[in-house]
Amino acid sequence: MLKDKIRNKEGGILFYGITPPKAKNTKEELEAIAKKQIDRLKDLDIDGLVLYDIQDESDRTDVKRPFPYMETLDPCVYAKQYLDAPLHVPVVIYRAVGKYDKEEFSEWLENRKGRDFHTVFVGAASKETKVTIGMREAYKLKKEINDDIVLGGIMIPERHTLKQDEHLKVFSKIDNGCEFFVSQCVYDLMGAKRFLDDYLAYSKEHNKPLVPIIFTITPCGSSKTLDFMKWLGINIPPHLEERLKNSENILEDSVKLSRDIFEILYFYGKGKGIPIGCNVESVAIRKDEIDASIELLHDIQKIMDR
Amino acid sequence: MLKDKIRNKEGGILFYGITPPKAKNTKEELEAIAKKQIDRLKDLDIDGLVLYDIQDESDRTDVKRPFPYMETLDPCVYAKQYLDAPLHVPVVIYRAVGKYDKEEFSEWLENRKGRDFHTVFVGAASKETKVTIGMREAYKLKKEINDDIVLGGIMIPERHTLKQDEHLKVFSKIDNGCEFFVSQCVYDLMGAKRFLDDYLAYSKEHNKPLVPIIFTITPCGSSKTLDFMKWLGINIPPHLEERLKNSENILEDSVKLSRDIFEILYFYGKGKGIPIGCNVESVAIRKDEIDASIELLHDIQKIMDR
Repeated sequence: MLKDKIRNKEGGILFYGITPPKAKNTKEELEAIAKKQIDRLKDLDIDGLVLYDIQDESDRTDVKRPFPYMETLDPCVYAKQYLDAPLHVPVVIYRAVGKYDKEEFSEWLENRKGRDFHTVFVGAASKETKVTIGMREAYKLKKEINDDIVLGGIMIPERHTLKQDEHLKVFSKIDNGCEFFVSQCVYDLMGAKRFLDDYLAYSKEHNKPLVPIIFTITPCGSSKTLDFMKWLGINIPPHLEERLKNSENILEDSVKLSRDIFEILYFYGKGKGIPIGCNVESVAIRKDEIDASIELLHDIQKIMDR
Repeated sequence: MLKDKIRNKEGGILFYGITPPKAKNTKEELEAIAKKQIDRLKDLDIDGLVLYDIQDESDRTDVKRPFPYMETLDPCVYAKQYLDAPLHVPVVIYRAVGKYDKEEFSEWLENRKGRDFHTVFVGAASKETKVTIGMREAYKLKKEINDDIVLGGIMIPERHTLKQDEHLKVFSKIDNGCEFFVSQCVYDLMGAKRFLDDYLAYSKEHNKPLVPIIFTITPCGSSKTLDFMKWLGINIPPHLEERLKNSENILEDSVKLSRDIFEILYFYGKGKGIPIGCNVESVAIRKDEIDASIELLHDIQKIMDR
């Protein structure tokens, strides 16, 4: 179903994105966490559950990480061992390709043969990160070993504001086999709008089809979370940062803002003929932030009329 | 043609808006001004030329007016005596109803019988302004004397941000005979977006059709013009005001910003099924600001694919 929606290049795809639990948890703790997540997700009308593959991005910047890095469970392991049977929703597994060597990666691709599988390849956080295989090799191996996998790429609207070439990166990834894109969390509406304009213009000029662009939005519950988002490279326009930091209810305001930004992008895409989807992300651990992400998901369902 | 577009409730209506020349000009000066304006407009693909009816709005606020008030020629006189024959485009005449007494206004309506005529009624700038007839009476007289006139109303997105009831005002004006709306100049994208959301929701809930909403955009060439726009009650979000005031090229930046804001609203409306049009306004006298408004008009033509 998700595979069909992606390959038919449909708009209105809806994801929910979470990070797997910390690897240091015991089996019992992991089961308890999984049960909670399943309870929260089982009645939701989503097309896929995104599972992030967390890498330590400290290489990328000299600024201190606001939250400590702790290794998380491999998203494939978490999905298969803890979520798979009780949760009847496709998973979309992020794969930080730089974590693996060629043999591991090839075996992983091999083992996913013969069933619907969705993944998003993520490159190294910075050029300084030690990698064993790069994106080019990952694309090549995917094509050789298991070309049936539904492959996605990441897209960063903020980068478009800086360099105006994110649409070129996207089309190059499409040439390498990407069939959909999930954005980094978007607070910069104009950057995202201009990316869509250039994405559409290039597609028309070169007669290339448009694949679904899935915008990620995420509630932000505290100044510390906001700092963390900035640390991750998310561009929060200064006036919005100011507004959120001075807000009496930063969580509520960020949910409202995220919903408005997505609603604009969704119908803008609809008006222009660009397939737009949404990924509601919950990267926080605090209960009120998780609840807010579920509330946001319900809002998006309404916007998408599903 | 314009009449049909309005009555068919179409999106994509395009206006250009100007103020008539100062009344103190001689006949020769007026002819020279009109010639210049006709030259600028004659090759443009627009649906209508908006002519404002300027009233002294000093009653509305205690803040000093940045530009002095000077009486302008009556827009009907200017249209008929100076523009009518050479310019083959429908005019949309603003009518500040509070300037007239009942007899004058009735005669004016009477004299417009038997031909296509488009007008926008504007109420008093403040409750303190001395008026002879009010909006209620103007609507009543129009219905009694000349109901064929194509009537528009004004819409202020900024007011929606403050009071959340602009859509109710709009539907009440529709009940009074308004068939389209022209907004005040819009720099507050989120306010305009939320107005459209509420406008659509109310229309669905009460099973009322949506009439065209024509958003006004205007280039701003200097800090003084910006102050004037603020004085007129246009809400420029603080971060945009900051950006424009500190801009090396305020004119170019304001054109770009206005175009992006309109493009978003246009396709947002298209996606949601709300008919959106555009009124490019040139209220300034400086040549570079006028040129910028024409350039902006060309951009909007492209956006509308006309």
